[in-house]
Formats: sequence, structure tokens, C-alpha cells
Amino acid sequence: MQQGILFVVSAPAGCGKGTILGQILKDEKYYYSVSATTRNPRPIDIEGVTYHFLSKTDFEKLIAENAFLEYAQYCDNYYGTLKAPIEENLSKGRHVIMEIEVQGAMQIRKLRPDARFIFIAPPSFETLRQRLEHRGTETPEVIEKRVSAAKKELEMKVYYDYCIVNDILDDAVADFKAVVRAEELKISRKA
Amino acid sequence: MQQGILFVVSAPAGCGKGTILGQILKDEKYYYSVSATTRNPRPIDIEGVTYHFLSKTDFEKLIAENAFLEYAQYCDNYYGTLKAPIEENLSKGRHVIMEIEVQGAMQIRKLRPDARFIFIAPPSFETLRQRLEHRGTETPEVIEKRVSAAKKELEMKVYYDYCIVNDILDDAVADFKAVVRAEELKISRKA
Repeated sequence: MQQGILFVVSAPAGCGKGTILGQILKDEKYYYSVSATTRNPRPIDIEGVTYHFLSKTDFEKLIAENAFLEYAQYCDNYYGTLKAPIEENLSKGRHVIMEIEVQGAMQIRKLRPDARFIFIAPPSFETLRQRLEHRGTETPEVIEKRVSAAKKELEMKVYYDYCIVNDILDDAVADFKAVVRAEELKISRKA
Repeated sequence: MQQGILFVVSAPAGCGKGTILGQILKDEKYYYSVSATTRNPRPIDIEGVTYHFLSKTDFEKLIAENAFLEYAQYCDNYYGTLKAPIEENLSKGRHVIMEIEVQGAMQIRKLRPDARFIFIAPPSFETLRQRLEHRGTETPEVIEKRVSAAKKELEMKVYYDYCIVNDILDDAVADFKAVVRAEELKISRKA
């Protein structure tokens, strides 16, 4: 069976990455890579859907076993991506979608030269600001911080393979599918 | 303005390359690269559509001026691809489609590392044989020769970037468009 392809996806907050991936993941040919964490579950969390919740002892045991593709520590909690479910799904021919911020993506770039890196960008910073304002959940200060962070993240897009601008959702979803299809058609694809 | 992309397309005879390209070229964002030749026009030929017809003197003058991206001699006639119309269209942001057999494509591979190489393959040799038989224009011997030639050409597909299997025409056209779109979305695309 032909191997699936690992797609690593990053986007600044407010770029509609979740909405695009929601559309893409309707197709069973994709497997969404769920991160593991030691942070406490919140009411909104579902084990195995939002995160795999692990104890600190278990997480550190898995680190020692080299079970993570990447992991990091924030605010005294571990966050990481387990290798096994990724490999298992790829070997079944399913494409794996992994959402990760730019620093984590750059780690994976080195470890997995076979992965394809997709950056999702806002049509403009003005649009991004409007979208964040439209949500109405953030203060103007937070919005400014997010727009500044997005500008910095956008500079990292040069390290990605593809950039999809999310102006019109349907077009962005079609672009994502085109990228996947083209990668499927690549001669160099692992048999 | 963003540069167009040069797509080099090869396929064994009977793979439906002409039909696929016919669909693709309906879109004005493409320019079809017309070859130049010194052979005599046939009644079916249209100057600038099937070929650019040149005298041997003119062709050799252009060779001396390094005006060809590639050229070759068959049966005492020259055949070649002029650089100028390709560059002109690429700089206008149009994608250039260049149909060429595998040997010629490999020459271009060295000269134009920015070009993308698409191989169109039959779903199987049995299907290819059936298609050629269905045409009813060739003798069984010629069909066998063509199928053998296709097998040899198919070995060359490893030197291409993409392989599109033409089983169902609409799917093959959609695959071609997906490849173009993905290439448009590439970060490394020449600005």
C-alpha cells in the first residue's frame, strides 16, 4: 500500500485554519494528529479529540522512550506529538494533518524531510484585525498583540512549502485539496 | 507581476495527452508553446498553431543566435523550441505548456530547473492497446510497436515531477489543474 503523506499546518491566530481543517477532515482519508499534554483537562476538552491527557510521569517515560516526534514545555506543562499514531496512519495510506506553531514546525522539518509544510495566511493584516475585532472576544490591546504576532509568524512562511491565503473559505479549502492532490501525484512519493 | 510557470508535458502516444491539454488550454492563463520546424507544411498545418514554419537558413541563423531552448534534427528537418515566446509569456504571468518527448524533456530539465515536468500515463498497457485498436487507424504491428515504445517511455517517468494517470478524462484534467494550482501556491515560486 502507498504511504500517506504528513502535512504540517501552521497559521497565525485568526486565519481560519480551524475552519479550513474542519472542511478537509470530513474526508476519511485524513487523520488529524492529536497532541499529548500533561495540563489538566478543561470542561471543553475530550480525551483523544482535543488532547491525549497524560500524567507527568507517563509523559516523561514516553520522552525517555523517544516516543515523541516533538515536544515542548510551556507553563510547567508538557505538550507533544506522539510518533506511533502518525506512523500507523501513514502506513495505512492515510494522510496525517498536524497543526503546530512555527517553531515546532521547524523542528519537524529537520526530523521529517518527507513532510509537507503548509502555511495559512490572512489576505491582509487589516482583514486579520477586522476578523479578530468581529469575534468581539478580545480587547483592542490583545488584538494588536495578535496582529503583531501574526506579522512575525508570517515572516516564517518562507520555510514552508506552500502558502494558502484564506480570503474566501471555499477557495482556501480547494487550494488545500489541490496541494494534497498534487503531492499524491508526485513521482517521488514514497511507495 | 508574478512570473508564470513552465510546464513540460510528455506522454506516450495514445495516452490522451492532446485531449487533456485541449481542456486545459481553454483557460487563457496558459500559453501553448508552438515548436518551430523546417519541414514542409502539410494541408492540415496552420502556421503558428501546429508549427512555426521556417526555412533551413532562418532556422540555422536562430541556432547560431542561441534562440532555441532545445532543438533536434529528424529526417533532415529541424524541430525546436524558441526561447523568446516562452520568456515573454512567463514574464506576463502566463503559464507555458510545452509538449515534448522524453529525450527533449530531459534536455530542458538541465536548462530550466524552474520548469515542472508532468508525465501522462495510461491506466495500463492493456487499456493503451485497446485505445489504439479502437482508433482503427493502425495495423496490429504498429500497435504492438507503440505499446512497446510506451513501456520504454514509461520507465522515464521517474525523471518527472508528477505523473497523471489518464483513466477518466475529467479526473485527469482535474489532476492537471491541481498540480498547476499547487505549483502556484508554492512559497519558492519566482516572484
